Amino acid sequence: MTPTLQLAHDLIRRRSVTPDDAGCQDLMIQRLEAIGFQVERLRFEEVDNFWATRGTDGPLLAFAGHTDVVPTGPEGQWQHPPFEPVIENGMLYGRGAADMKGSLASMVVACEQFVAEHPDHQGRIGFLITSDEEGPSVNGTVKVVEWLEARQEKIDWCIVGEPSSTDRVGDVIKNGRRGSLGGILRVKGVQGHVAYPHLADNPIHKAAPALAELAAQEWDQGNEFFPATSFQISNINGGTGATNVIPGDVEVVFNFRFSTEVTETQLRERTETILNKHQLDYELDWKLSGQPFLTAEGELVDAVVKAVEQHTGQKPILSTAGGTSDGRFIAPTGAQVVELGPRNDTIHKVDECVKAEDLDTLTALYQSTLKRLLIR
Amino acid sequence: MTPTLQLAHDLIRRRSVTPDDAGCQDLMIQRLEAIGFQVERLRFEEVDNFWATRGTDGPLLAFAGHTDVVPTGPEGQWQHPPFEPVIENGMLYGRGAADMKGSLASMVVACEQFVAEHPDHQGRIGFLITSDEEGPSVNGTVKVVEWLEARQEKIDWCIVGEPSSTDRVGDVIKNGRRGSLGGILRVKGVQGHVAYPHLADNPIHKAAPALAELAAQEWDQGNEFFPATSFQISNINGGTGATNVIPGDVEVVFNFRFSTEVTETQLRERTETILNKHQLDYELDWKLSGQPFLTAEGELVDAVVKAVEQHTGQKPILSTAGGTSDGRFIAPTGAQVVELGPRNDTIHKVDECVKAEDLDTLTALYQSTLKRLLIR
Repeated sequence: MTPTLQLAHDLIRRRSVTPDDAGCQDLMIQRLEAIGFQVERLRFEEVDNFWATRGTDGPLLAFAGHTDVVPTGPEGQWQHPPFEPVIENGMLYGRGAADMKGSLASMVVACEQFVAEHPDHQGRIGFLITSDEEGPSVNGTVKVVEWLEARQEKIDWCIVGEPSSTDRVGDVIKNGRRGSLGGILRVKGVQGHVAYPHLADNPIHKAAPALAELAAQEWDQGNEFFPATSFQISNINGGTGATNVIPGDVEVVFNFRFSTEVTETQLRERTETILNKHQLDYELDWKLSGQPFLTAEGELVDAVVKAVEQHTGQKPILSTAGGTSDGRFIAPTGAQVVELGPRNDTIHKVDECVKAEDLDTLTALYQSTLKRLLIR
Repeated sequence: MTPTLQLAHDLIRRRSVTPDDAGCQDLMIQRLEAIGFQVERLRFEEVDNFWATRGTDGPLLAFAGHTDVVPTGPEGQWQHPPFEPVIENGMLYGRGAADMKGSLASMVVACEQFVAEHPDHQGRIGFLITSDEEGPSVNGTVKVVEWLEARQEKIDWCIVGEPSSTDRVGDVIKNGRRGSLGGILRVKGVQGHVAYPHLADNPIHKAAPALAELAAQEWDQGNEFFPATSFQISNINGGTGATNVIPGDVEVVFNFRFSTEVTETQLRERTETILNKHQLDYELDWKLSGQPFLTAEGELVDAVVKAVEQHTGQKPILSTAGGTSDGRFIAPTGAQVVELGPRNDTIHKVDECVKAEDLDTLTALYQSTLKRLLIR
């Protein structure tokens, strides 16, 4: 078994259901310290995190990732026990195999091999590892980034190990993510009996044309890297349950996934302009889950794209699709950020698995990127 | 105490919470048989009803009403125990005083006085009395009407004793009621993640413009007797509770209160045309609660209006406002139907009451109507 697959096995065997780390970070730290990394353990409340660096000056290339995994679901439905990794027909099975203990193993082994070949590399290598990515994401990467900023520690390039690939490892690199902005809207009317509508004011009737306009709105057309901004209503609830009562209010929960062509402020203002145009009496609570970020071009994207082309013979697609990732916390510091990891088709599912040889390819991609950025 | 008030006391004292009659009908039957009425007791399941007639041929003027009352609510909140009638400051207090034991007393006493003066009146007088008006209305008037139709018994004029008055007894006569048609609409979409809207189909977004159009629709302009038909959404519910999931469907409960300018069929067809125009995938269950009815003009309205003018010096307003009544079951037989009773401002409430002298006025109005229709 290759070093990457061996380490992936050792990590999967640790039952690190979020936010438990279950010793994964100890294992990584031991390996990194052995090749000259300085490590700071950073526990925030119930969450284990660490920050490690090798090298003393020059640009900093950091690997970011998480040791926690999502729950298994019904273990009896798994073909193999989820925390007993096994390779069968070329696939490595286990919870976290794809998201993202396989990537963590590739990162560590890539550094081991890189340092063995280039013990006096230029610049610095970093690791930003958390056990709170699958949970509330409150005491994980966001707190480590705050701690780094307080120390004026600056990441130049960051590779997040999220499983970015679709059909072949490296076919898709995420070079950004859409922003996520949520709203809870309460449209107010006047409750009354359906037989006396002139004495009531139906909030559902008042809200309907405004919601229709919001749903039909073109918020932007997206751009080269982002699909158009999307508005979606996830929940609507109004009514007393009785069929002869006009309710006093209706609640609408909605979410924007937005590109870099609009700002959070613009979305809030445009939404409220539409609500006001329809003369609604309303309360609206906004919650920003994440700003959009984009690493359109630069040394990092160049290096990663070339590494993929060299090792797979195919040009990767740059994409910003999908949900949020911890990249949203790192990009605002000014770092270039990409996500590169294995295929994501089984993540969070029963029988999560990854093609075993893909993890060795991923190790080669990470190592090749290290060379391109830190050996001049 | 006048005969009407004495009988009203005797009826209120009987605790006839729907569907119990508690002996009210026995008391009425005893009084009616004493003045020559033929009585048929008609018990359907748990509901007592009776049909009584006096006279052998000619047009039939029927009084319709109910002996059941709504529950008292917290008895401790009443100034006087609800089944211990008392007159205080000119008001008769007790559950059913206004809805509608006062009217029943007035009807019986009006007939007693009319028969005493005109033992050989023309035409016939009827009583259609139920103890299931405040409940499900399944084994009450609707069943008696079916029984009458099976016997080819035809009511020409019907006075329902529902409390129709607003400020003074007789100021409002109900000469019809709107229809009531309900719908439960389920608009179907495709569930998905808000981050991947192209893989989902948001049923709330699809429904919103259709609901806006339904809410803005002019269904008719009403007419001299009816306000415009009203469409009201009473309940809307869609969503899984999660803020990042586009739901698979949304349920909308709505109700029409409709005039005689549209039919149930037209409302159904026009609603479905709008839903189809918006290309919705939906299920829709309709429920008709009552057809609209109207006694626009004729001998009965003339007689009642003239009786009110003579006794109160004021011209009554003809109205079709408010909820449904048992008139909806009688009108479809071809009968002219009006509702005339005391003020309705305390019905169904704690401390239900009626102005004592209004019941004597009501007796006079009923007696005057009998004379106008049955003495030529």
